[in-house]
Amino acid sequence: MPKINDVAENAGVSITTVSRVLNNRGYISESTRNKVFLAMKELNYQPNEMARSLYRKKSNMIGLIIPTVTNPFFSELTYHLEYFANLKGYKLVLCNSMKNIQKEHDYIDMLKKNQVDGILVGSSVLDVEHYLNLNLPIVSFERTLANIPTVTSDYITGGKLAAQLLLDKGCLKPALIFQAGGGPHHQSLLTAGIGQGFEDVLKGTAIRPVYMELDPDININQCHGNELLRIFNEHPEIDGVLTEDLLAAEIIRICNRLDKKIPEDIKLIGYDDVMIPSLLSPRLSSVRQPIKEMSEYIIESIIKQIKGEVVPMLHTIPVTLIERETT
Amino acid sequence: MPKINDVAENAGVSITTVSRVLNNRGYISESTRNKVFLAMKELNYQPNEMARSLYRKKSNMIGLIIPTVTNPFFSELTYHLEYFANLKGYKLVLCNSMKNIQKEHDYIDMLKKNQVDGILVGSSVLDVEHYLNLNLPIVSFERTLANIPTVTSDYITGGKLAAQLLLDKGCLKPALIFQAGGGPHHQSLLTAGIGQGFEDVLKGTAIRPVYMELDPDININQCHGNELLRIFNEHPEIDGVLTEDLLAAEIIRICNRLDKKIPEDIKLIGYDDVMIPSLLSPRLSSVRQPIKEMSEYIIESIIKQIKGEVVPMLHTIPVTLIERETT
Repeated sequence: MPKINDVAENAGVSITTVSRVLNNRGYISESTRNKVFLAMKELNYQPNEMARSLYRKKSNMIGLIIPTVTNPFFSELTYHLEYFANLKGYKLVLCNSMKNIQKEHDYIDMLKKNQVDGILVGSSVLDVEHYLNLNLPIVSFERTLANIPTVTSDYITGGKLAAQLLLDKGCLKPALIFQAGGGPHHQSLLTAGIGQGFEDVLKGTAIRPVYMELDPDININQCHGNELLRIFNEHPEIDGVLTEDLLAAEIIRICNRLDKKIPEDIKLIGYDDVMIPSLLSPRLSSVRQPIKEMSEYIIESIIKQIKGEVVPMLHTIPVTLIERETT
Repeated sequence: MPKINDVAENAGVSITTVSRVLNNRGYISESTRNKVFLAMKELNYQPNEMARSLYRKKSNMIGLIIPTVTNPFFSELTYHLEYFANLKGYKLVLCNSMKNIQKEHDYIDMLKKNQVDGILVGSSVLDVEHYLNLNLPIVSFERTLANIPTVTSDYITGGKLAAQLLLDKGCLKPALIFQAGGGPHHQSLLTAGIGQGFEDVLKGTAIRPVYMELDPDININQCHGNELLRIFNEHPEIDGVLTEDLLAAEIIRICNRLDKKIPEDIKLIGYDDVMIPSLLSPRLSSVRQPIKEMSEYIIESIIKQIKGEVVPMLHTIPVTLIERETT
């Protein structure tokens, strides 16, 4: 494999000059630059990115810490984050923390040692001080971290849209069924906005919603069937539900079993609108997360920070409600 | 941030000695080693992994090229690959190639320049020469690449298990409905084994299966509803189906529409058994891919190659059929 000194010799310039061309530093005349490029082409020279990174103190790597890429929301997000990072010349190092404090801690340590240029962190569980001490560009999503730029979809409006649709369809006993936030930072999880928006809409009416929190579990194949069956047996009056897409699949099965017709007896709305809603029968109405837009903005935000620019502390992206066959 | 010379000074040894301790090279006495570790601890010294990598010519990075992490099979696989890589001290750089030849080419180029220690590639579309010329440890999965170690599940047995179950349940007109392999390497895609196994079982009977290939599409939200409706209208005799999990979801919807009962009128078996089967109503019987075992073996295989060990050219992992409510 040709080395930098071979390029220098072939081009008739010094190694320093080749290095300057590669790193676009210092003054280089157009003709010298051309000679170097010609020599690189002739020799099929591949600059050693790792050596260049070390020199530039820039690795062009971004760390991504999420609970697990097996969750459809995070797999869709990871796909788009990688897409936009790649467009800008950045590589994505994937870390699945399973919302485990020790794992999150170890991943951050590893990413820092490997000199990533920035870290993207979703649903993090560590104390914010840990991130602030890193002295690295960071973007948080799905959780607000004080003094760290956060990108989120508009969960409050998502909750409002769903409540309004259930009201419009004549529901008198709507229920909100979600997994409990889990972890020590429940309050700071942005998804709490869904309930807030839902309540905001119903506040002005005589309708009081049923709130149900299921045991949280990160394994998406966890079965909540018994918990859900209990809820519908104890609350036979429920005639509308806002829930997560994954739970909606189980609710459809429970309703089949209890001979409750969707949407005739119960209107059902999911949240996220990633993959699952179109697979279900009937097809699920769902609040769509703007994952592509979020991903593009998250990558923009981290690159701006890497370049030393200031970015907004909170950026909120609008959501839409996609109506299908369950409302 | 403390540097290597600060550690040397604090420990009262030369920089070369600190470097030797860090890289575990050359003879170092136990007491010197302890002095260096103590100094590192006192100063909270973080060795620069990138500089060490350059010195050792080892990045501890593994590139993963898959079509898209949004597909549940690949997201589950990616999760486990990252898990096992992390256990062994390796980082995973994620690349979504969308089965696009140019993208796959560019990713390989990028990974090579960044000196990854090895590449894992699933459903690749590039010529095998391209991989052989890399002179890098590689593991292929979902496609056989001549002279490159390949890890796969036992697709032939998967097809056999499904055909046998349909026969046992009394099916006389089973159909095999898959998306066409797509891309220029259709023949080398290992999934072709499913059809082979299916046929092997039926060969000894008077039963001739119906084969249907749908237009391939990498976007999992692609709707095949019209194609499937046409198939069931043209072949009302179909009484059993082996298909992909994602297509099974659509087939359930089509059957509801045509008033065909599952499993009474049509028995349905999916393939992969990742997330989707348990979400559907009725719950889908499906051939389970041994994703965790595959991932563990893939990581073992790439690390052995990185260490210069020889690994088998083909390793096949057994599959099981999980019976649920559709058969």
